[in-house]
Amino acid sequence: MTTATYTVQGMTCGHCVSSVKEEVSEVEGVEAVDVDLAAGSLTVTSAQPVDVAAVRQAVTDAGYQLVTP
Amino acid sequence: MTTATYTVQGMTCGHCVSSVKEEVSEVEGVEAVDVDLAAGSLTVTSAQPVDVAAVRQAVTDAGYQLVTP
Repeated sequence: MTTATYTVQGMTCGHCVSSVKEEVSEVEGVEAVDVDLAAGSLTVTSAQPVDVAAVRQAVTDAGYQLVTP
Repeated sequence: MTTATYTVQGMTCGHCVSSVKEEVSEVEGVEAVDVDLAAGSLTVTSAQPVDVAAVRQAVTDAGYQLVTP
């Protein structure tokens, strides 16, 4: 099991959290997604490491921005 | 046609606006709902004046707060 934590910009409320969770959950290989609104953090759990570009695209699709890396 | 403008606290993003619009649109007699996120204003259009208590309840149901009156 692998967990990776990212920083997301632009989330302001619980709806934003739901949108990010929904999109990132659809990325191939992702088994669990946790978002901390106050910290702006996104934690992705998967059996194998997940493609960062796919996570970034999912966050963008939700309307937010994954901070580098 | 009557329009009434209220102030709503707690809306932070477009999702919040959608939630408020959806709930207030369901109030009896309401024909149009407009929300200005930056101003925190809610404008309700109806043929006859709408019950403020019903608008307040709709805003509360959406998860936000109608400022007095």
